[in-house]
Amino acid sequence: MSLIVQKFGGTSVRDAERVMNVARIVTDTFAKGNDVVVVVSAQGDTTDDLIAKAEEINPKASRREKDMLLAAGEQISIALLAMAIEKLGYHATSLLGWQAGFETTSAHTSARIRRVNADRIREALDKHNIVVVAGFQGISRRGDITTLGRGGSDTSAVAIAAAMHADLCQIYTDVEGVYTADPRKVETARKLKEISYDEMLELATLGAQVLNNRSVEMAKKYNIELEVLSSLAKAPGTIVKEKTKMEKMLISGVAKDTDVARISVIGVPNIPGIAFKMFSKLSAKDINVDIILQSIGHDGKKDISFTVAKTRGREAVAALEEYMVSHGAKEVLYDDEVAKISIVGAGMESHAGVATKMFEALYDAQINIQMISTSEIKVSVLIDINEADKAVKAIHNKFFD
Amino acid sequence: MSLIVQKFGGTSVRDAERVMNVARIVTDTFAKGNDVVVVVSAQGDTTDDLIAKAEEINPKASRREKDMLLAAGEQISIALLAMAIEKLGYHATSLLGWQAGFETTSAHTSARIRRVNADRIREALDKHNIVVVAGFQGISRRGDITTLGRGGSDTSAVAIAAAMHADLCQIYTDVEGVYTADPRKVETARKLKEISYDEMLELATLGAQVLNNRSVEMAKKYNIELEVLSSLAKAPGTIVKEKTKMEKMLISGVAKDTDVARISVIGVPNIPGIAFKMFSKLSAKDINVDIILQSIGHDGKKDISFTVAKTRGREAVAALEEYMVSHGAKEVLYDDEVAKISIVGAGMESHAGVATKMFEALYDAQINIQMISTSEIKVSVLIDINEADKAVKAIHNKFFD
Repeated sequence: MSLIVQKFGGTSVRDAERVMNVARIVTDTFAKGNDVVVVVSAQGDTTDDLIAKAEEINPKASRREKDMLLAAGEQISIALLAMAIEKLGYHATSLLGWQAGFETTSAHTSARIRRVNADRIREALDKHNIVVVAGFQGISRRGDITTLGRGGSDTSAVAIAAAMHADLCQIYTDVEGVYTADPRKVETARKLKEISYDEMLELATLGAQVLNNRSVEMAKKYNIELEVLSSLAKAPGTIVKEKTKMEKMLISGVAKDTDVARISVIGVPNIPGIAFKMFSKLSAKDINVDIILQSIGHDGKKDISFTVAKTRGREAVAALEEYMVSHGAKEVLYDDEVAKISIVGAGMESHAGVATKMFEALYDAQINIQMISTSEIKVSVLIDINEADKAVKAIHNKFFD
Repeated sequence: MSLIVQKFGGTSVRDAERVMNVARIVTDTFAKGNDVVVVVSAQGDTTDDLIAKAEEINPKASRREKDMLLAAGEQISIALLAMAIEKLGYHATSLLGWQAGFETTSAHTSARIRRVNADRIREALDKHNIVVVAGFQGISRRGDITTLGRGGSDTSAVAIAAAMHADLCQIYTDVEGVYTADPRKVETARKLKEISYDEMLELATLGAQVLNNRSVEMAKKYNIELEVLSSLAKAPGTIVKEKTKMEKMLISGVAKDTDVARISVIGVPNIPGIAFKMFSKLSAKDINVDIILQSIGHDGKKDISFTVAKTRGREAVAALEEYMVSHGAKEVLYDDEVAKISIVGAGMESHAGVATKMFEALYDAQINIQMISTSEIKVSVLIDINEADKAVKAIHNKFFD
């Protein structure tokens, strides 16, 4: 007998029909002789509806009260799913985050899980109940309701799997698994059978958004085998685990990220410490910098370019402009009409020429590269946003045809 | 400085505008130097919407899961009200039933409060917070979410007032107080300044439905002064307390109850124990009997008539028919086209002729009385349902003109 944790997102439980569909998946798994713990998010647009209600009353409400409000969303979905399981003739017990033992930090709206005390879950499993747990939420040491931030239900599921030494953690979503590229954009994209934690992490960071990043980090740390699969298609998904052996591909996927802006500071005086001072202005405002590119100086001047999240772009420019110009820089340029295209793959560590092959694909497609950044298992380039989809296709065809 | 508990029903917080209105009432009370604990119900139709969702999935869902579902309703309203209070510049802390210390029995959907541990409420008050508590809900000793049944928020408010020795418990509703008759039906109906617990209890039982009965019983037990008033009109309401001294009226109100059916068993053999056996058939099915009338027997036969709630009427007939007829009764008659009209007043204890005055009013209006029942502070009559409003007016005019 195995212990299986299954997580279903908001679209998987958006109405009565979908809730019944999830109940069938869950009870099928239970009927095969497994212990089953189900983690659910709030139904469909519930979270957005609740946020709209709060905005109408007080857009500056305290984070504590926001958490109190939002946590009602999963409370509704766990009760409905438990009822659906009962309807199919099985015993179910729904548990709120705090009842399921989720102790978190008190950082409201973005709390981190301190520990999961799974006693009550185990007690219900021992009584042959299917246990339905509210994802996304927990309780602080003060006894206040907390939430883990968007996408936190994935993390809830992995945390339970880790605390209970589950045999498998299945993340049901609206895609059938992890693909080599976005299948809606690239016809030849194919579903991966397996992918390593590190590759999955790079893909998540790069905007593939199949799995929440914190959940993959936690799965890696506790060595929890994940499966990403669809709640509608009855097909095996993609297994995420430490080492993949089955497929020896150079790269596991091509990802696109359009939530990015490029800032260039032109004519920076070529003196020691100037880059440090510049970036400390940004870190003081908690703005993360991604790709950094510095030109080789000449005439005592150099140019420094970097990327930040588009949502923080204007703020970053404002934080730099006065200081840099008053310290000798010529100007600060801003461009958010850019996209970051990345290839990810553990295979590239041992194979030379992966980056070259990517650049060749872009050259063939006549796409200009603005910036380049590389890590052990990733190569990213910054290009014009209007050429992003064309670039993904060109690179995908180069590697997978 | 006083401690005031204020309770607001679902219509009082049905949308953002109404929530802000409640926040103003609450903060006004706080600004006058009072400690304020607010108890709220779920917004407008939230409870009905949640019940509809459950019905769609599983009409026979377990009571435990129904409670889990419904408790989300107040969770939303307390968070929104706390946000509205914050918007007005005050500190607020919302607390769920279990956080506010409501320990209940484990009778899901109709739990009773065992005790209220108000430590957390007091702690928040000490930090100059307005405390917003979810009514209607609590937690069982097993740690499961429970609800008190419809109207339970009134009881929650009184229970907090009792546990904390509050100076006043205000029940805000959509009427301006307790009236001598339904003001929508009787133009001359007037608002009472005061009413005693016992009179209020009789009125509540009789269908006046201003206050939940359990809440009045609890207020009487712990001697909590209640005020019933409107959240929209800025006017004093009706005070409910042990002894009323201000007004020496014969009666405090005329009430109508149309949720009633009359059952008559004709030709019952006049032998000992037959009435006992008959009513034990009903109590076995948990059917409450109200007015009972037995004719004086002749020819060894008698007729027994009684009233039950209309919703249980057919069931009561089914429970009796076979047994009674096979034991010699002639037939069982059923009539749910009846109404119970009652007058209530502590004054009638010391004043003879109150019942006579009521009968006179009905005679003047040519209304036939089917059954009569009296208690120390109440006289009830059963009449044809089509004459109910006319009867209320006639009796009201007789006593209050």
